[in-house]
Amino acid sequence: MSNIDIFVWEFLGTAILCLLGSGSVASVALKNSFSHGGGGDWLIIVLGWGFGVFAGASVAAPAGGHINPAVTLAVAISGGVPWMSVPVFWAGQLLGAFVGAWLAWAAFKLQFDKSEDNAGTRAIFCTSPAVPHTPWNLVTEAIATFVLIIWVLTNPEANSTLGFAAVAFVVITIGFALGGPTGYAINPARDLGPRIAYALLPIKGKAGPDWGYSWVPVVGPLIGATLAAGLALGLP
Amino acid sequence: MSNIDIFVWEFLGTAILCLLGSGSVASVALKNSFSHGGGGDWLIIVLGWGFGVFAGASVAAPAGGHINPAVTLAVAISGGVPWMSVPVFWAGQLLGAFVGAWLAWAAFKLQFDKSEDNAGTRAIFCTSPAVPHTPWNLVTEAIATFVLIIWVLTNPEANSTLGFAAVAFVVITIGFALGGPTGYAINPARDLGPRIAYALLPIKGKAGPDWGYSWVPVVGPLIGATLAAGLALGLP
Amino acid sequence: MSNIDIFVWEFLGTAILCLLGSGSVASVALKNSFSHGGGGDWLIIVLGWGFGVFAGASVAAPAGGHINPAVTLAVAISGGVPWMSVPVFWAGQLLGAFVGAWLAWAAFKLQFDKSEDNAGTRAIFCTSPAVPHTPWNLVTEAIATFVLIIWVLTNPEANSTLGFAAVAFVVITIGFALGGPTGYAINPARDLGPRIAYALLPIKGKAGPDWGYSWVPVVGPLIGATLAAGLALGLP
Amino acid sequence: MSNIDIFVWEFLGTAILCLLGSGSVASVALKNSFSHGGGGDWLIIVLGWGFGVFAGASVAAPAGGHINPAVTLAVAISGGVPWMSVPVFWAGQLLGAFVGAWLAWAAFKLQFDKSEDNAGTRAIFCTSPAVPHTPWNLVTEAIATFVLIIWVLTNPEANSTLGFAAVAFVVITIGFALGGPTGYAINPARDLGPRIAYALLPIKGKAGPDWGYSWVPVVGPLIGATLAAGLALGLP
Repeated sequence: MSNIDIFVWEFLGTAILCLLGSGSVASVALKNSFSHGGGGDWLIIVLGWGFGVFAGASVAAPAGGHINPAVTLAVAISGGVPWMSVPVFWAGQLLGAFVGAWLAWAAFKLQFDKSEDNAGTRAIFCTSPAVPHTPWNLVTEAIATFVLIIWVLTNPEANSTLGFAAVAFVVITIGFALGGPTGYAINPARDLGPRIAYALLPIKGKAGPDWGYSWVPVVGPLIGATLAAGLALGLP
Repeated sequence: MSNIDIFVWEFLGTAILCLLGSGSVASVALKNSFSHGGGGDWLIIVLGWGFGVFAGASVAAPAGGHINPAVTLAVAISGGVPWMSVPVFWAGQLLGAFVGAWLAWAAFKLQFDKSEDNAGTRAIFCTSPAVPHTPWNLVTEAIATFVLIIWVLTNPEANSTLGFAAVAFVVITIGFALGGPTGYAINPARDLGPRIAYALLPIKGKAGPDWGYSWVPVVGPLIGATLAAGLALGLP
Repeated sequence: MSNIDIFVWEFLGTAILCLLGSGSVASVALKNSFSHGGGGDWLIIVLGWGFGVFAGASVAAPAGGHINPAVTLAVAISGGVPWMSVPVFWAGQLLGAFVGAWLAWAAFKLQFDKSEDNAGTRAIFCTSPAVPHTPWNLVTEAIATFVLIIWVLTNPEANSTLGFAAVAFVVITIGFALGGPTGYAINPARDLGPRIAYALLPIKGKAGPDWGYSWVPVVGPLIGATLAAGLALGLP
Repeated sequence: MSNIDIFVWEFLGTAILCLLGSGSVASVALKNSFSHGGGGDWLIIVLGWGFGVFAGASVAAPAGGHINPAVTLAVAISGGVPWMSVPVFWAGQLLGAFVGAWLAWAAFKLQFDKSEDNAGTRAIFCTSPAVPHTPWNLVTEAIATFVLIIWVLTNPEANSTLGFAAVAFVVITIGFALGGPTGYAINPARDLGPRIAYALLPIKGKAGPDWGYSWVPVVGPLIGATLAAGLALGLP
């Protein structure tokens, strides 16, 4: 597959992922929306992101449906894609995440405009730790990503409609089980792309993008992916 | 497939969709119903509509399982159905949506009759914007429909039991992510058919059908479908 | 398949269905249970019954996985099973439903014993109308069952693991959309078998079994099934 | 398959199961976590454990995906694995459950540390009865496990991606229907491994591991599995 094709598919799939994921958080966080205040907020966020992974990955299927730099890294370590393609995957994913976040903002523009307090809107786009502590925040992100990657690498059907539905189930349980402490980025592009978008978007009264934390949801998932890929090489 | 067959299958599938969708909103909106007040209202609405798409589309599978004029438009642009069949699809879908809404009213007739305040019952049948603003409401509907259509056009397994389950997952994440601002019609028939039914049904104290807004959930999805179909033509 | 085999498989599948379904209602209705008071009660009931249909139907797959006299009637009308087998299916289903309800009581025996007020426990076993009105209660049950049966008859993959999962999705959306007014029996055995069990079980302070209503969730589903089977014969 | 391979796959799958399951309970039980207080706690726990079974079982697929000593016992009774392999399965499962629980603690370490009252944290790791009564607690665990095992033994597709998703649906309905009274261990390793971990983990102010009850969620599931396997031998 040509680099352009990889870039296009990964861009499109990751844009859909981040549009649906950021939208799901906006859906419960912003007032003046029918989805606000109905209860079960964490269920909505986790199911929205989880099936968002399904939607995005199945669109990006021709390129493998990675939509996550940590997946691409692990697949490269496993020999599934050549190392020289990795930057192309990553560029498509990061730009897609940025554009997806921008579209989520557009879909909720009226809700952002009507809100009197947008200090908490960063959580719509990128993650923060519930309890800040760099080493343990890295541990949480690495563990959560490890589960995702070891599943992908040990399930040969992963790249199919059924496989992408299965990935969604895995991401849903990861969200329920391991999302609470750090917001489960488990995907560097999903966090960094929307964070950059948030820094640039015209949201009145928004918080800062917290660049100080921004490397944790990039490095933590890459650590988890490396550990999982290393383990997978040693599995029977 | 003959025009009559197309009409029958799309009629039946869209009737099932709108019966299940309108029923799911009625389920939490109307008192004197076991489903009222249990919490998680938005989850019930989104899951009810989402699996309602599965039920309706898999019944309409012999005709392609569109049950949505925006899907038919996009498939026609892609060359999947001849343009002269499009009005047949649309007629079946619109009439089916009308009949499905009427059946939802019948299933909840006692709840409508016992209710002392039916001013909010329009939301059971058709959509309204949480914040009225025609251009941005169109943007939200177009974005949400774009996601649905680009998924359908890029997933060759879409017309199968597994594919319709997958569409349900996509509609569920769209509902969670993008349903809050405008109620996510993402389907002109699903909105217009039940709106006409609402205008005619004998519901005491009902609100008006809001014809002024009624063209937005028709045009917005058709714009989104056209953009997605155009993009799909250019994809590798 | 021999009559004994039919009886055994339908007995076992329907027992599992009613154990899981009655258990799901008990789960939120009875105090002194970890599942009580966590919120989202209607979601738990609908998802519990829905995936209970999956569990029961896939166990009963060798006999067709009916676990519902309304399904058996519709399949017989369609020519899928001989009429002389119908009483065997029905007997297995009714006895299975009775035993499943009994097992649900056993699983929650301590909760029944500790409860100070068991007047509302009938809802764990069988259905009642939210607003009593025989003709319209029949209409609601008939409409809900019609959707189930038309789906089963038009989906040739229905008798497979994937098909039973798909039926679960259909039952889930029926529960969300049409369960509120009458508790959605949509299955004569599922209602009558546990109703008989409730009449016999040693639950202190229980309500009466409401025999006066008991024929409605039997006749309503059979009407809906007959209408759906008749329509299916005329479909292209 | 060699004993080492069995051990490795069952270890890994059960570790993932218990990491995701314990994490899901921690997610709602511990404060200072984004997943705390959003509502629908029992839904989160049941869906987290259920899809955790999917994730763990599909990773352990090369060894059969048991991740549960009760499943291994039943498969051995059915002749599916040689009896001399059973201790290897069990050892991998128990050690995996221990390590998974330990990882769940690591992911939530900051939340444990910040909590002022950890007396209730045992429920994150292992089960307790809502109403203590040894015989009836055994009955509840045996019934719940019986449903799981009879499903596994009667569904030949169980060992596949689709089959593991189906098992997740079954575990989800078991959780909703039968989880309330005893917390549904339905898996001796899932309860005993994390219980040992809880006894050893440095959680300030934790409760005791309740060794007095610890044999019930081991013996109850083994009884249920034996009954189901015996019944399965007699099925047509």
